Amino acid sequence: MIKKYMYGSPVNTGAVIENIELSEDPMQYLNEIIDKDGNYLFTYLMNDDDIVYGLGEANRGLNKRGYIYENNCTDVPDQTEDKRSFYGAHNFIVLSGMISVGIFVDCGAKVTFDIGYTAYNMLKIIPSSPDFTVYIIEGRSAYDIVKQFRGLIGRSYIAPRWAFGYQQSRWSYENEDEVRQVVKNHRENNIPLDAVYLDIDYMEGYKDFTVSEERFPDFPQFVQEMRDEGIRLIPIIDAGVKIENGYELYEEGRQYQFFCKKTDGTDFVASVWPGRTHFPDFLNSNARMWFGSKYKKLTDAGIEGFWNDMNEPAMFNTPEGINEAVETQKSFDFSTNDSGKFFELGGMVTGLANREKDYQSFFHNMDGKIVRHDQVHNLYGYNMTRAASEAFDHISPDKRMLLFSRASYIGMHRYGGIWTGDNQSWWSHLLLNIKMMPSLNMCGFLYSGADLGGFGCNCTRDLLLRWLAFGIFTPLMRNHSAKGTRRQECYNLGETEEFKNILSIRYSLIPYLYSEYMKACLNDDMFFKPLSFEYPADDFARNIEDQLMVGESIMIAPVYEQNARGRYVYLPEDMLLVIFKSSSQRRFQQLKKGLHYIPAALDEVPLFIRKNKMLPLCRTSECTDKMDTSMFEIIAYTSENIEFEMYEDDGVSKNYDDPKNMVHFAIRELDGQLGAVSDKTIVKLSLF
Amino acid sequence: MIKKYMYGSPVNTGAVIENIELSEDPMQYLNEIIDKDGNYLFTYLMNDDDIVYGLGEANRGLNKRGYIYENNCTDVPDQTEDKRSFYGAHNFIVLSGMISVGIFVDCGAKVTFDIGYTAYNMLKIIPSSPDFTVYIIEGRSAYDIVKQFRGLIGRSYIAPRWAFGYQQSRWSYENEDEVRQVVKNHRENNIPLDAVYLDIDYMEGYKDFTVSEERFPDFPQFVQEMRDEGIRLIPIIDAGVKIENGYELYEEGRQYQFFCKKTDGTDFVASVWPGRTHFPDFLNSNARMWFGSKYKKLTDAGIEGFWNDMNEPAMFNTPEGINEAVETQKSFDFSTNDSGKFFELGGMVTGLANREKDYQSFFHNMDGKIVRHDQVHNLYGYNMTRAASEAFDHISPDKRMLLFSRASYIGMHRYGGIWTGDNQSWWSHLLLNIKMMPSLNMCGFLYSGADLGGFGCNCTRDLLLRWLAFGIFTPLMRNHSAKGTRRQECYNLGETEEFKNILSIRYSLIPYLYSEYMKACLNDDMFFKPLSFEYPADDFARNIEDQLMVGESIMIAPVYEQNARGRYVYLPEDMLLVIFKSSSQRRFQQLKKGLHYIPAALDEVPLFIRKNKMLPLCRTSECTDKMDTSMFEIIAYTSENIEFEMYEDDGVSKNYDDPKNMVHFAIRELDGQLGAVSDKTIVKLSLF
Repeated sequence: MIKKYMYGSPVNTGAVIENIELSEDPMQYLNEIIDKDGNYLFTYLMNDDDIVYGLGEANRGLNKRGYIYENNCTDVPDQTEDKRSFYGAHNFIVLSGMISVGIFVDCGAKVTFDIGYTAYNMLKIIPSSPDFTVYIIEGRSAYDIVKQFRGLIGRSYIAPRWAFGYQQSRWSYENEDEVRQVVKNHRENNIPLDAVYLDIDYMEGYKDFTVSEERFPDFPQFVQEMRDEGIRLIPIIDAGVKIENGYELYEEGRQYQFFCKKTDGTDFVASVWPGRTHFPDFLNSNARMWFGSKYKKLTDAGIEGFWNDMNEPAMFNTPEGINEAVETQKSFDFSTNDSGKFFELGGMVTGLANREKDYQSFFHNMDGKIVRHDQVHNLYGYNMTRAASEAFDHISPDKRMLLFSRASYIGMHRYGGIWTGDNQSWWSHLLLNIKMMPSLNMCGFLYSGADLGGFGCNCTRDLLLRWLAFGIFTPLMRNHSAKGTRRQECYNLGETEEFKNILSIRYSLIPYLYSEYMKACLNDDMFFKPLSFEYPADDFARNIEDQLMVGESIMIAPVYEQNARGRYVYLPEDMLLVIFKSSSQRRFQQLKKGLHYIPAALDEVPLFIRKNKMLPLCRTSECTDKMDTSMFEIIAYTSENIEFEMYEDDGVSKNYDDPKNMVHFAIRELDGQLGAVSDKTIVKLSLF
Repeated sequence: MIKKYMYGSPVNTGAVIENIELSEDPMQYLNEIIDKDGNYLFTYLMNDDDIVYGLGEANRGLNKRGYIYENNCTDVPDQTEDKRSFYGAHNFIVLSGMISVGIFVDCGAKVTFDIGYTAYNMLKIIPSSPDFTVYIIEGRSAYDIVKQFRGLIGRSYIAPRWAFGYQQSRWSYENEDEVRQVVKNHRENNIPLDAVYLDIDYMEGYKDFTVSEERFPDFPQFVQEMRDEGIRLIPIIDAGVKIENGYELYEEGRQYQFFCKKTDGTDFVASVWPGRTHFPDFLNSNARMWFGSKYKKLTDAGIEGFWNDMNEPAMFNTPEGINEAVETQKSFDFSTNDSGKFFELGGMVTGLANREKDYQSFFHNMDGKIVRHDQVHNLYGYNMTRAASEAFDHISPDKRMLLFSRASYIGMHRYGGIWTGDNQSWWSHLLLNIKMMPSLNMCGFLYSGADLGGFGCNCTRDLLLRWLAFGIFTPLMRNHSAKGTRRQECYNLGETEEFKNILSIRYSLIPYLYSEYMKACLNDDMFFKPLSFEYPADDFARNIEDQLMVGESIMIAPVYEQNARGRYVYLPEDMLLVIFKSSSQRRFQQLKKGLHYIPAALDEVPLFIRKNKMLPLCRTSECTDKMDTSMFEIIAYTSENIEFEMYEDDGVSKNYDDPKNMVHFAIRELDGQLGAVSDKTIVKLSLF
């Protein structure tokens, strides 16, 4: 049951696809308060045992209680525990306790969720704009509410199957030769690989939709060369368009009035990687169509995937900010060597980036309605990605493209995936990654993942091994790192054997992972689930944040502490522990419901098969192009007849709903003993 | 067995008190390598199962493997996982595995410990100076090696017993009235309190050994007023001496040539809180004596404890740095609004603080020997604290003073304690605090603790409750927070009852904690021990980092995760779980050796009494002055006759070794059943 309440005159964010009538009932659950300035806020008194799920890409745990979150897309690489805003803004929460209720605040401006931060049991929701819509969702359980919500916001973006391959990135692989070498190093070490990313340096002067001729002299040819190796190249696209006379995108954007404008009608200017840029007005449908059409320049060169970056939008500074700083600076008399003044100057310079004041200084033309940016800030990266996605519907109507974004808002989940932005090579960020995945799924973001190994700071061998051991379960499995940090490609951190082995497990799992991902997409369901969603009656499972259900058959419990030899795991039912050393080397152990310590060496990946479930595995391969999905090995934990419906398609076309895409696996009693049955060739059955 | 090896001509750091002959044997265990520049480095190939203990105040886990530590005292409030230097520099490690060996690199300059960071199994030790001494310690076990090392470096500083009371700090309580109010709020809410800290604003213009007359018009009178309330005031002393004509400390320091000097013979200048300052040459014994004597200004006013701060020494900038920045700045043409230049300027300003170049630009006169600062950098804060400690031997020869420092080096542990510097209100810093305590003990720092609740960032109610639940076991138990952060005194985070109750447990435990602390001090032993030190044969206990042995009777397992309802605990033997809700409200449960999940609500403190051990508790009190140690309650976990020797003295005098200080407790069979026996009144025996 979903009820809708409107406040002020909200713009249509496009988050919701169902047309719901405004409710005439008074709002239940939340207390609506109007403060002395006329602003709305909503409160709810939580019980001690209530859990608050949701918020998608946000800081801290699966249970969001005990902190304050300011949902406002922000470029925040230094994601320490105190940060309140991340790259995405996902205003959906589920209160789960004596009552279960979902709340979605549909608002393009910042929305603050104070979940027991200011007062321990008090939930406060504070939209920063007077214009917003609130959806209240009642349901039988948190999981039921999530599924209703997912229906409300529409089917999630569906990635091609090759995007489940391992992907390698770096800011930046500078030219053809470096990319070739990266691929060669993977292939020579038998480390599977499906894609290499091109970060900002592939462009000519950081100009979108250009390719440096010096670095990539014959780009289409090089794309094909890589394609022949089973490798896709994934170029980055930034939000800001370089101001440069003669640059097509700049000239057209000015001509068609497609850039965001200031009050005086001139185009808003901010500095990012290319220097001074204009921001395309992605909230304008014509501008979206125009910008989206430019992706064709690269798809024509054979490109099949993109990542949209810097689209919070991040700003290093604006001319207005610099002018203010220059003016202030003039009043400093440096000849006195006043150290206090120097600190003031330092703070002033730092403060130039991503200033709220700048976000308040430019405007969008939402197909006729002029809206100040800060009122729709969280819709910006969303609509950049929508621009690309809608263009792809024309450019390649029958073929899926890989597309994901840094900034996002609910609604964007229909157009692309996300990566979780610039994280760090910290063990705590591996844990953050684990806890965040189900929250993202609740908000519709299924194709997602973090920068494995961490973007900033220097990665260590053990951190990368443990992070990959989790990453093999995330749909987006990308190793990415920043300029200036230690090289963290799998062949750069000592003995490659263990990395190769961990990735071989991924490639054996792809049919299962892809199946469960697709089933989640097609059924508005989750790929990663908290244990509590599968075992709602289990009070102990309810508070577990570091174990996840992955699809219908398995549970994972990643190791995320340095020097740990394993970890504590709680089994909500009897399960079969499989410890993989590689796709083909495994140990099995049947474990009883309850508490266990699971030893897991650095090169081992434990997973747990649920009772009466099975896990199909294919042989590993060096890339998805070479995957053989005609033959399967089945690991099953059952003494009864069981079934598993595996989704399988060609991985690129869009006939998702074809019933032929369901492959049937069964364990059945045949001649007095259990055997595996499928249209697929079953090469081996491991039955427990 | 300790062997000593000398390289170059090291200065006497004073770290070691035993006079050991230089070994004529070749160095075992470590490979000595001289690189192409003639610098020494030492390597050791670790086995997969080796644990590396030590490094005292350092980042990451109890097992230091997997990272690189640059031991170089640094002002580093933002202690994220990637940081390599903390406030202290403690160059002692223990390799523990097939062989056990201790290594102490006695060197006043930076020493790098690369413990499997660059190459996974390779330990590298790299002194940055050619002059240093290496001690190699062989022993039966890691614990045995630690005890030998502790004998080598001499008896740890002994704090007065009142310093085990709860202490409240803030940067800053600005004046008498605010301090009064803090005390009043504690007393009115029955929250025990023994001390309030005065941060930098109590001074007149941040001038050491001055007190602002405006803020504290009659300081001695106010000190007495607080003393009558059972409260000690603990003023801060900073390293830098303000340059101000007529200011006694400045004038004398110049007159006697007691400040650090530059090559040209002029006094080195750096800006810190007071603005421009000179740094006293604490490495000069006369300067030490002079500076130390100034503490008398405050002890004469009734002060009984100090914290020495900013003594890495931290520097905001130097005139040389500013001059360079001003020169560079002149070349910037801001009229072009070049944003790149603005970033350059920002970086330049940030880079002015704690510049290595500045540390290389001044000199010490070590009683005749002129030494460049960077060669003895890690001895600076140490010798500031030594100055105070040696002065106290004259000022109050019979009475213990509270003294602790931010910067430290091994050797300083004889003169004072440490707090672990500026941390943050992060759950990860609570865990860091837990893991660091035994490492500090290994290096001789027994009187220590972290800023409970976190110094920087905003604390939440649950974080403070959980942090206090650990803090009640740390000798230094101080709640401290920074200007601009949320107030985190116990009465400022909602219902005070739970805070009061947790602190009541501390006050019941003080006789035990003080006893175990004193026994550790007097016997060169540890107060906090890793489980592996007590249960060396237990392979599972060996890798546990988040449970600690506290004294001889108990083990603790603090909860350090937000929203956790308890935690996993491994018992290396049968133990008695005691869950305290307050000093008088407890639940008991006998638990078997092995793995358990221990529920612990936010207001509960679990502790574990070892088999055949007992825990004496006194009644709680509002401050240590009011503690009644004539009556004890005993919780004992035994079916046999057992004994416990509790150290007790008057808490302030120095006759530590008086045998009368040992109080005997026994559980004995009397008339066919076990009963408690002591010279103390036993008001209750809870026997399990």
